[in-house]
Amino acid sequence: MSSKIDAELYIEVKNFYARQMRVLDDLDIEQFILTFTENGSVAHPHRNEKTVGHENMRTKMNAMLPGYQGTVTRHWFDHFLLEEHEGDALRVTYYSLVTQSNDKEEVTFFSSSSVEDIMVREGGELRIRDRIIYRDNPAKGRVI
Amino acid sequence: MSSKIDAELYIEVKNFYARQMRVLDDLDIEQFILTFTENGSVAHPHRNEKTVGHENMRTKMNAMLPGYQGTVTRHWFDHFLLEEHEGDALRVTYYSLVTQSNDKEEVTFFSSSSVEDIMVREGGELRIRDRIIYRDNPAKGRVI
Amino acid sequence: MSSKIDAELYIEVKNFYARQMRVLDDLDIEQFILTFTENGSVAHPHRNEKTVGHENMRTKMNAMLPGYQGTVTRHWFDHFLLEEHEGDALRVTYYSLVTQSNDKEEVTFFSSSSVEDIMVREGGELRIRDRIIYRDNPAKGRVI
Repeated sequence: MSSKIDAELYIEVKNFYARQMRVLDDLDIEQFILTFTENGSVAHPHRNEKTVGHENMRTKMNAMLPGYQGTVTRHWFDHFLLEEHEGDALRVTYYSLVTQSNDKEEVTFFSSSSVEDIMVREGGELRIRDRIIYRDNPAKGRVI
Repeated sequence: MSSKIDAELYIEVKNFYARQMRVLDDLDIEQFILTFTENGSVAHPHRNEKTVGHENMRTKMNAMLPGYQGTVTRHWFDHFLLEEHEGDALRVTYYSLVTQSNDKEEVTFFSSSSVEDIMVREGGELRIRDRIIYRDNPAKGRVI
Repeated sequence: MSSKIDAELYIEVKNFYARQMRVLDDLDIEQFILTFTENGSVAHPHRNEKTVGHENMRTKMNAMLPGYQGTVTRHWFDHFLLEEHEGDALRVTYYSLVTQSNDKEEVTFFSSSSVEDIMVREGGELRIRDRIIYRDNPAKGRVI
Protein backbone atom coordinates (compact mmCIF):
# COMPACT_ATOMS: atom_id res chain seq x y z
CA MET A 1 0.00 0.00 0.00
CA SER A 2 2.42 2.63 -1.23
CA SER A 3 -0.07 5.51 -1.17
CA LYS A 4 0.10 7.53 2.01
CA ILE A 5 -2.85 7.34 4.39
CA ASP A 6 -4.84 10.33 3.21
CA ALA A 7 -8.50 11.28 3.22
CA GLU A 8 -9.25 9.41 0.00
CA LEU A 9 -7.82 6.14 1.34
CA TYR A 10 -9.58 6.65 4.68
CA ILE A 11 -12.93 6.94 2.91
CA GLU A 12 -12.15 4.04 0.55
CA VAL A 13 -11.57 1.90 3.65
CA LYS A 14 -14.81 3.13 5.26
CA ASN A 15 -16.67 2.27 2.04
CA PHE A 16 -15.08 -1.19 2.06
CA TYR A 17 -16.50 -1.87 5.53
CA ALA A 18 -19.89 -0.35 4.66
CA ARG A 19 -20.17 -2.83 1.78
CA GLN A 20 -18.65 -5.78 3.67
CA MET A 21 -21.04 -5.34 6.61
CA ARG A 22 -24.07 -5.08 4.29
CA VAL A 23 -23.26 -8.47 2.76
CA LEU A 24 -22.37 -10.03 6.12
CA ASP A 25 -25.52 -8.75 7.85
CA ASP A 26 -27.53 -9.87 4.81
CA LEU A 27 -26.04 -13.37 5.40
CA ASP A 28 -24.65 -13.37 1.85
CA ILE A 29 -21.78 -15.76 2.57
CA GLU A 30 -20.45 -15.91 -1.00
CA GLN A 31 -20.14 -12.14 -1.36
CA PHE A 32 -18.65 -11.86 2.12
CA ILE A 33 -15.96 -14.45 1.35
CA LEU A 34 -14.96 -12.51 -1.76
CA THR A 35 -13.92 -9.57 0.46
CA PHE A 36 -11.04 -11.79 1.66
CA THR A 37 -8.01 -12.95 -0.31
CA GLU A 38 -8.11 -16.60 -1.40
CA ASN A 39 -5.95 -17.56 1.58
CA GLY A 40 -7.51 -14.99 3.86
CA SER A 41 -8.11 -15.85 7.50
CA VAL A 42 -10.50 -15.01 10.32
CA ALA A 43 -9.33 -15.69 13.87
CA HIS A 44 -11.28 -15.62 17.13
CA PRO A 45 -8.53 -15.95 19.76
CA HIS A 46 -11.06 -15.91 22.64
CA ARG A 47 -12.30 -19.30 21.43
CA ASN A 48 -8.97 -20.52 20.00
CA GLU A 49 -10.33 -20.58 16.49
CA LYS A 50 -8.83 -19.67 13.15
CA THR A 51 -10.38 -20.31 9.74
CA VAL A 52 -8.13 -20.06 6.69
CA GLY A 53 -9.15 -19.85 3.03
CA HIS A 54 -12.42 -19.40 1.16
CA GLU A 55 -13.47 -23.06 1.32
CA ASN A 56 -13.05 -23.33 5.09
CA MET A 57 -14.76 -19.98 5.62
CA ARG A 58 -17.71 -21.17 3.50
CA THR A 59 -18.06 -24.42 5.47
CA LYS A 60 -17.77 -22.64 8.80
CA MET A 61 -20.23 -19.88 7.96
CA ASN A 62 -22.80 -22.23 6.47
CA ALA A 63 -22.68 -24.27 9.68
CA MET A 64 -23.31 -21.11 11.73
CA LEU A 65 -26.02 -19.74 9.43
CA PRO A 66 -29.11 -21.26 11.14
CA GLY A 67 -28.26 -19.37 14.35
CA TYR A 68 -28.55 -16.06 12.53
CA GLN A 69 -31.69 -16.62 10.47
CA GLY A 70 -34.28 -15.59 13.06
CA THR A 71 -32.72 -12.18 13.63
CA VAL A 72 -31.40 -9.14 11.81
CA THR A 73 -27.78 -8.77 12.89
CA ARG A 74 -26.04 -5.40 12.59
CA HIS A 75 -22.36 -4.61 13.07
CA TRP A 76 -21.53 -1.08 14.26
CA PHE A 77 -17.90 0.04 13.90
CA ASP A 78 -16.01 2.97 15.37
CA HIS A 79 -12.61 4.47 16.06
CA PHE A 80 -10.80 3.32 12.94
CA LEU A 81 -7.02 3.62 12.79
CA LEU A 82 -5.12 2.96 9.55
CA GLU A 83 -1.41 2.17 9.53
CA GLU A 84 0.96 1.08 6.82
CA HIS A 85 1.99 -2.54 7.38
CA GLU A 86 5.04 -4.32 5.97
CA GLY A 87 5.40 -1.86 3.11
CA ASP A 88 2.54 -2.91 0.88
CA ALA A 89 -0.24 -3.79 3.28
CA LEU A 90 -2.56 -1.80 5.51
CA ARG A 91 -3.36 -2.53 9.16
CA VAL A 92 -6.82 -1.34 10.18
CA THR A 93 -8.03 -1.56 13.77
CA TYR A 94 -11.46 -0.61 15.09
CA TYR A 95 -14.17 -1.23 17.66
CA SER A 96 -17.10 -3.50 16.72
CA LEU A 97 -20.48 -3.65 18.46
CA VAL A 98 -23.01 -6.22 17.27
CA THR A 99 -26.77 -5.94 17.82
CA GLN A 100 -29.66 -8.19 16.83
CA SER A 101 -33.34 -7.47 16.15
CA ASN A 102 -36.05 -10.12 16.46
CA ASP A 103 -39.42 -10.33 14.72
CA LYS A 104 -40.98 -8.13 17.41
CA GLU A 105 -38.44 -5.45 16.41
CA GLU A 106 -36.76 -5.69 19.82
CA VAL A 107 -33.04 -4.90 19.76
CA THR A 108 -30.45 -6.61 21.97
CA PHE A 109 -26.68 -6.63 22.25
CA PHE A 110 -24.89 -9.61 20.74
CA SER A 111 -21.22 -8.76 21.35
CA SER A 112 -18.56 -6.08 21.75
CA SER A 113 -15.10 -6.61 20.27
CA SER A 114 -12.05 -4.95 18.83
CA VAL A 115 -10.83 -6.04 15.40
CA GLU A 116 -7.50 -6.01 13.59
CA ASP A 117 -7.51 -6.43 9.80
CA ILE A 118 -4.50 -6.73 7.51
CA MET A 119 -5.59 -5.54 4.06
CA VAL A 120 -3.92 -5.81 0.69
CA ARG A 121 -4.86 -4.75 -2.82
CA GLU A 122 -5.77 -7.30 -5.49
CA GLY A 123 -6.53 -5.94 -8.95
CA GLY A 124 -6.95 -2.50 -7.44
CA GLU A 125 -9.51 -3.65 -4.86
CA LEU A 126 -8.99 -3.87 -1.12
CA ARG A 127 -9.18 -7.40 0.30
CA ILE A 128 -8.64 -8.67 3.84
CA ARG A 129 -5.76 -11.08 4.24
CA ASP A 130 -6.00 -11.59 8.01
CA ARG A 131 -8.73 -10.64 10.45
CA ILE A 132 -8.44 -11.10 14.21
CA ILE A 133 -11.54 -10.50 16.34
CA TYR A 134 -10.85 -9.93 20.04
CA ARG A 135 -14.08 -10.37 22.01
CA ASP A 136 -14.27 -7.92 24.91
CA ASN A 137 -13.79 -9.77 28.17
CA PRO A 138 -12.12 -8.25 31.25
CA ALA A 139 -10.80 -11.69 32.25
CA LYS A 140 -8.77 -11.88 29.02
CA GLY A 141 -7.30 -8.40 28.96
CA ARG A 142 -7.83 -5.67 26.40
CA VAL A 143 -5.93 -5.94 23.17
CA ILE A 144 -6.86 -2.98 20.99
CA MET B 1 -24.97 16.21 -8.09
CA SER B 2 -22.35 16.56 -10.78
CA SER B 3 -19.34 16.57 -8.46
CA LYS B 4 -17.76 13.16 -8.06
CA ILE B 5 -18.05 11.47 -4.69
CA ASP B 6 -14.83 12.60 -3.08
CA ALA B 7 -13.66 13.16 0.47
CA GLU B 8 -15.07 16.69 0.64
CA LEU B 9 -18.56 15.55 -0.38
CA TYR B 10 -18.36 12.57 1.99
CA ILE B 11 -17.66 14.89 4.91
CA GLU B 12 -20.26 17.42 3.80
CA VAL B 13 -22.81 14.58 3.92
CA LYS B 14 -21.59 13.46 7.36
CA ASN B 15 -21.93 17.07 8.59
CA PHE B 16 -25.45 17.21 7.16
CA TYR B 17 -26.47 14.20 9.26
CA ALA B 18 -24.65 15.48 12.35
CA ARG B 19 -26.74 18.65 12.15
CA GLN B 20 -29.98 16.94 11.13
CA MET B 21 -29.77 14.48 14.03
CA ARG B 22 -29.04 17.26 16.55
CA VAL B 23 -32.26 19.06 15.58
CA LEU B 24 -34.28 15.82 15.41
CA ASP B 25 -33.02 14.57 18.79
CA ASP B 26 -33.64 18.07 20.20
CA LEU B 27 -37.28 17.67 19.00
CA ASP B 28 -36.93 20.85 16.93
CA ILE B 29 -39.56 19.93 14.34
CA GLU B 30 -39.33 23.17 12.34
CA GLN B 31 -35.57 22.95 11.83
CA PHE B 32 -35.82 19.24 11.05
CA ILE B 33 -38.45 19.83 8.35
CA LEU B 34 -36.21 22.40 6.69
CA THR B 35 -33.63 19.68 6.01
CA PHE B 36 -36.15 18.25 3.50
CA THR B 37 -37.25 19.75 0.20
CA GLU B 38 -40.73 21.33 0.21
CA ASN B 39 -42.17 18.14 -1.31
CA GLY B 40 -39.80 15.87 0.60
CA SER B 41 -41.07 12.56 1.93
CA VAL B 42 -40.45 10.15 4.80
CA ALA B 43 -41.64 6.58 4.35
CA HIS B 44 -41.86 3.76 6.92
CA PRO B 45 -42.68 0.73 4.74
CA HIS B 46 -42.86 -1.57 7.78
CA ARG B 47 -45.98 0.28 8.89
CA ASN B 48 -47.20 1.20 5.40
CA GLU B 49 -46.75 4.87 6.04
CA LYS B 50 -45.52 7.73 3.87
CA THR B 51 -45.63 11.41 4.75
CA VAL B 52 -45.16 13.92 1.94
CA GLY B 53 -44.42 17.64 2.21
CA HIS B 54 -43.54 20.03 5.03
CA GLU B 55 -47.12 20.56 6.21
CA ASN B 56 -47.89 16.84 6.56
CA MET B 57 -44.54 16.21 8.23
CA ARG B 58 -45.27 18.98 10.73
CA THR B 59 -48.70 17.56 11.58
CA LYS B 60 -47.38 14.03 11.89
CA MET B 61 -44.37 14.94 14.03
CA ASN B 62 -46.36 17.20 16.34
CA ALA B 63 -48.79 14.32 16.92
CA MET B 64 -45.89 12.02 17.83
CA LEU B 65 -44.09 14.59 19.98
CA PRO B 66 -45.60 13.71 23.40
CA GLY B 67 -44.19 10.18 23.14
CA TYR B 68 -40.67 11.56 22.93
CA GLN B 69 -40.77 14.24 25.61
CA GLY B 70 -39.92 12.08 28.64
CA THR B 71 -36.72 10.76 27.09
CA VAL B 72 -33.55 11.87 25.35
CA THR B 73 -33.54 10.07 22.00
CA ARG B 74 -30.28 9.60 20.12
CA HIS B 75 -29.78 8.34 16.59
CA TRP B 76 -26.49 6.54 15.87
CA PHE B 77 -25.56 6.06 12.19
CA ASP B 78 -22.96 3.88 10.53
CA HIS B 79 -21.76 2.37 7.25
CA PHE B 80 -22.63 5.22 4.93
CA LEU B 81 -22.54 4.60 1.18
CA LEU B 82 -22.91 7.49 -1.27
CA GLU B 83 -23.90 6.91 -4.90
CA GLU B 84 -24.80 9.25 -7.72
CA HIS B 85 -28.52 8.99 -8.48
CA GLU B 86 -30.28 10.01 -11.68
CA GLY B 87 -27.53 12.40 -12.67
CA ASP B 88 -28.10 15.26 -10.28
CA ALA B 89 -29.11 13.56 -7.04
CA LEU B 90 -27.28 11.56 -4.41
CA ARG B 91 -28.39 8.27 -2.88
CA VAL B 92 -27.14 7.77 0.66
CA THR B 93 -27.73 4.53 2.55
CA TYR B 94 -26.74 3.79 6.14
CA TYR B 95 -27.52 1.86 9.32
CA SER B 96 -29.46 3.63 12.09
CA LEU B 97 -29.61 2.59 15.74
CA VAL B 98 -31.85 4.58 18.09
CA THR B 99 -31.42 4.72 21.88
CA GLN B 100 -33.35 6.54 24.59
CA SER B 101 -32.33 7.79 28.03
CA ASN B 102 -34.81 8.37 30.84
CA ASP B 103 -34.61 10.72 33.83
CA LYS B 104 -32.66 8.09 35.80
CA GLU B 105 -30.05 8.24 33.01
CA GLU B 106 -30.79 4.64 32.03
CA VAL B 107 -30.25 3.88 28.35
CA THR B 108 -32.37 1.48 26.30
CA PHE B 109 -32.66 0.50 22.66
CA PHE B 110 -35.53 2.03 20.73
CA SER B 111 -34.98 0.63 17.22
CA SER B 112 -32.55 -0.63 14.59
CA SER B 113 -33.11 0.23 10.93
CA SER B 114 -31.46 0.84 7.60
CA VAL B 115 -32.19 4.09 5.78
CA GLU B 116 -32.14 5.22 2.17
CA ASP B 117 -32.08 8.95 1.45
CA ILE B 118 -32.28 10.65 -1.94
CA MET B 119 -30.60 14.06 -1.59
CA VAL B 120 -30.56 17.06 -3.88
CA ARG B 121 -29.02 20.51 -3.69
CA GLU B 122 -31.15 23.62 -3.22
CA GLY B 123 -29.34 26.95 -3.20
CA GLY B 124 -26.09 25.10 -2.62
CA GLU B 125 -27.38 23.23 0.45
CA LEU B 126 -28.09 19.51 0.67
CA ARG B 127 -31.75 18.63 1.26
CA ILE B 128 -33.49 15.27 1.47
CA ARG B 129 -36.11 14.65 -1.20
CA ASP B 130 -37.05 11.11 -0.20
CA ARG B 131 -36.26 9.12 2.92
CA ILE B 132 -37.20 5.47 3.39
CA ILE B 133 -36.67 3.91 6.83
CA TYR B 134 -36.61 0.10 6.86
CA ARG B 135 -37.10 -1.14 10.42
CA ASP B 136 -35.02 -4.27 11.08
CA ASN B 137 -37.30 -7.28 11.31
CA PRO B 138 -36.28 -10.80 10.21
CA ALA B 139 -39.90 -11.55 9.23
CA LYS B 140 -39.81 -8.78 6.63
CA GLY B 141 -36.43 -9.46 5.04
CA ARG B 142 -33.40 -7.25 4.97
CA VAL B 143 -33.38 -4.40 2.49
CA ILE B 144 -30.10 -2.52 2.84
CA MET C 1 -6.41 26.61 14.21
CA SER C 2 -5.87 28.67 11.08
CA SER C 3 -6.32 25.84 8.60
CA LYS C 4 -9.85 25.61 7.27
CA ILE C 5 -11.91 22.63 8.30
CA ASP C 6 -11.18 20.31 5.42
CA ALA C 7 -11.14 16.55 4.95
CA GLU C 8 -7.58 16.18 6.24
CA LEU C 9 -8.36 17.99 9.50
CA TYR C 10 -11.62 16.04 9.87
CA ILE C 11 -9.74 12.75 9.67
CA GLU C 12 -6.93 14.00 11.93
CA VAL C 13 -9.60 14.75 14.53
CA LYS C 14 -11.20 11.32 14.05
CA ASN C 15 -7.76 9.70 14.49
CA PHE C 16 -7.23 11.75 17.67
CA TYR C 17 -10.42 10.30 19.18
CA ALA C 18 -9.64 6.78 17.95
CA ARG C 19 -6.34 6.94 19.86
CA GLN C 20 -7.72 8.77 22.89
CA MET C 21 -10.54 6.24 23.34
CA ARG C 22 -8.14 3.29 23.01
CA VAL C 23 -6.03 4.60 25.92
CA LEU C 24 -9.11 5.58 27.97
CA ASP C 25 -10.85 2.22 27.45
CA ASP C 26 -7.53 0.50 28.21
CA LEU C 27 -7.54 2.41 31.56
CA ASP C 28 -4.16 3.93 30.69
CA ILE C 29 -4.59 7.06 32.79
CA GLU C 30 -1.14 8.53 32.06
CA GLN C 31 -1.52 8.35 28.28
CA PHE C 32 -5.08 9.66 28.51
CA ILE C 33 -4.00 12.70 30.54
CA LEU C 34 -1.39 13.54 27.92
CA THR C 35 -4.15 14.09 25.37
CA PHE C 36 -5.11 17.19 27.40
CA THR C 37 -3.16 20.41 27.76
CA GLU C 38 -1.37 20.85 31.13
CA ASN C 39 -4.26 23.01 32.36
CA GLY C 40 -6.88 21.04 30.50
CA SER C 41 -10.26 20.42 32.11
CA VAL C 42 -13.03 17.83 32.14
CA ALA C 43 -16.44 18.97 33.37
CA HIS C 44 -19.53 16.91 34.17
CA PRO C 45 -22.21 19.58 34.67
CA HIS C 46 -24.87 16.96 35.52
CA ARG C 47 -22.97 16.23 38.72
CA ASN C 48 -21.55 19.74 39.21
CA GLU C 49 -18.03 18.54 38.77
CA LYS C 50 -15.01 20.02 37.03
CA THR C 51 -11.45 18.69 37.16
CA VAL C 52 -8.65 21.00 36.06
CA GLY C 53 -5.04 20.09 35.27
CA HIS C 54 -3.10 16.86 34.88
CA GLU C 55 -2.50 16.32 38.60
CA ASN C 56 -6.17 16.63 39.54
CA MET C 57 -7.20 14.46 36.59
CA ARG C 58 -4.73 11.78 37.71
CA THR C 59 -6.04 11.80 41.30
CA LYS C 60 -9.66 11.72 40.15
CA MET C 61 -9.19 8.94 37.61
CA ASN C 62 -7.12 6.78 39.95
CA ALA C 63 -9.90 7.06 42.53
CA MET C 64 -12.48 5.94 39.94
CA LEU C 65 -10.30 3.15 38.51
CA PRO C 66 -11.50 0.24 40.70
CA GLY C 67 -15.04 0.70 39.39
CA TYR C 68 -13.86 0.03 35.85
CA GLN C 69 -11.54 -2.92 36.39
CA GLY C 70 -14.09 -5.73 36.22
CA THR C 71 -15.40 -4.65 32.82
CA VAL C 72 -14.29 -3.70 29.34
CA THR C 73 -15.65 -0.21 28.74
CA ARG C 74 -16.10 1.08 25.20
CA HIS C 75 -16.93 4.60 24.06
CA TRP C 76 -18.82 4.91 20.75
CA PHE C 77 -18.90 8.36 19.15
CA ASP C 78 -21.01 9.79 16.35
CA HIS C 79 -22.18 12.94 14.60
CA PHE C 80 -19.02 14.99 14.88
CA LEU C 81 -19.16 18.69 14.08
CA LEU C 82 -15.97 20.77 13.85
CA GLU C 83 -16.03 24.56 14.13
CA GLU C 84 -13.32 27.15 14.39
CA HIS C 85 -13.25 28.64 17.90
CA GLU C 86 -11.73 31.95 18.97
CA GLY C 87 -9.42 32.07 15.98
CA ASP C 88 -6.85 29.47 16.91
CA ALA C 89 -8.86 26.74 18.59
CA LEU C 90 -11.28 24.10 17.37
CA ARG C 91 -14.68 23.26 18.88
CA VAL C 92 -15.68 19.65 18.36
CA THR C 93 -19.09 18.36 19.43
CA TYR C 94 -20.34 14.78 19.20
CA TYR C 95 -22.57 12.08 20.66
CA SER C 96 -21.05 9.53 23.04
CA LEU C 97 -22.53 6.15 23.94
CA VAL C 98 -20.72 4.02 26.52
CA THR C 99 -21.08 0.24 26.84
CA GLN C 100 -19.50 -2.29 29.18
CA SER C 101 -18.75 -6.00 28.81
CA ASN C 102 -18.38 -8.34 31.77
CA ASP C 103 -16.42 -11.60 32.07
CA LYS C 104 -19.40 -13.52 30.64
CA GLU C 105 -19.07 -11.32 27.53
CA GLU C 106 -22.47 -9.75 28.20
CA VAL C 107 -22.80 -6.18 26.99
CA THR C 108 -24.78 -3.45 28.76
CA PHE C 109 -25.29 0.27 28.37
CA PHE C 110 -23.36 2.49 30.75
CA SER C 111 -24.34 6.00 29.57
CA SER C 112 -25.39 8.25 26.71
CA SER C 113 -24.06 11.81 26.50
CA SER C 114 -23.15 14.65 24.22
CA VAL C 115 -19.66 16.11 24.46
CA GLU C 116 -18.09 19.48 23.66
CA ASP C 117 -14.30 19.66 23.33
CA ILE C 118 -12.19 22.76 22.79
CA MET C 119 -8.97 21.65 21.11
CA VAL C 120 -5.71 23.46 20.51
CA ARG C 121 -2.41 22.52 18.91
CA GLU C 122 0.72 22.05 20.98
CA GLY C 123 3.91 21.22 19.10
CA GLY C 124 1.82 20.31 16.08
CA GLU C 125 -0.33 17.83 18.02
CA LEU C 126 -4.01 18.24 18.89
CA ARG C 127 -4.71 18.49 22.63
CA ILE C 128 -7.97 19.07 24.49
CA ARG C 129 -8.09 22.24 26.55
CA ASP C 130 -11.67 21.92 27.80
CA ARG C 131 -14.08 19.01 27.71
CA ILE C 132 -17.69 19.22 28.84
CA ILE C 133 -19.70 15.99 29.06
CA TYR C 134 -23.48 16.45 29.14
CA ARG C 135 -25.11 13.25 30.38
CA ASP C 136 -28.41 12.62 28.58
CA ASN C 137 -31.29 13.24 30.97
CA PRO C 138 -34.70 14.57 29.88
CA ALA C 139 -35.10 16.31 33.25
CA LYS C 140 -32.04 18.45 32.56
CA GLY C 141 -32.72 19.46 28.97
CA ARG C 142 -30.72 18.65 25.90
CA VAL C 143 -27.62 20.67 25.28
CA ILE C 144 -25.99 19.45 22.08
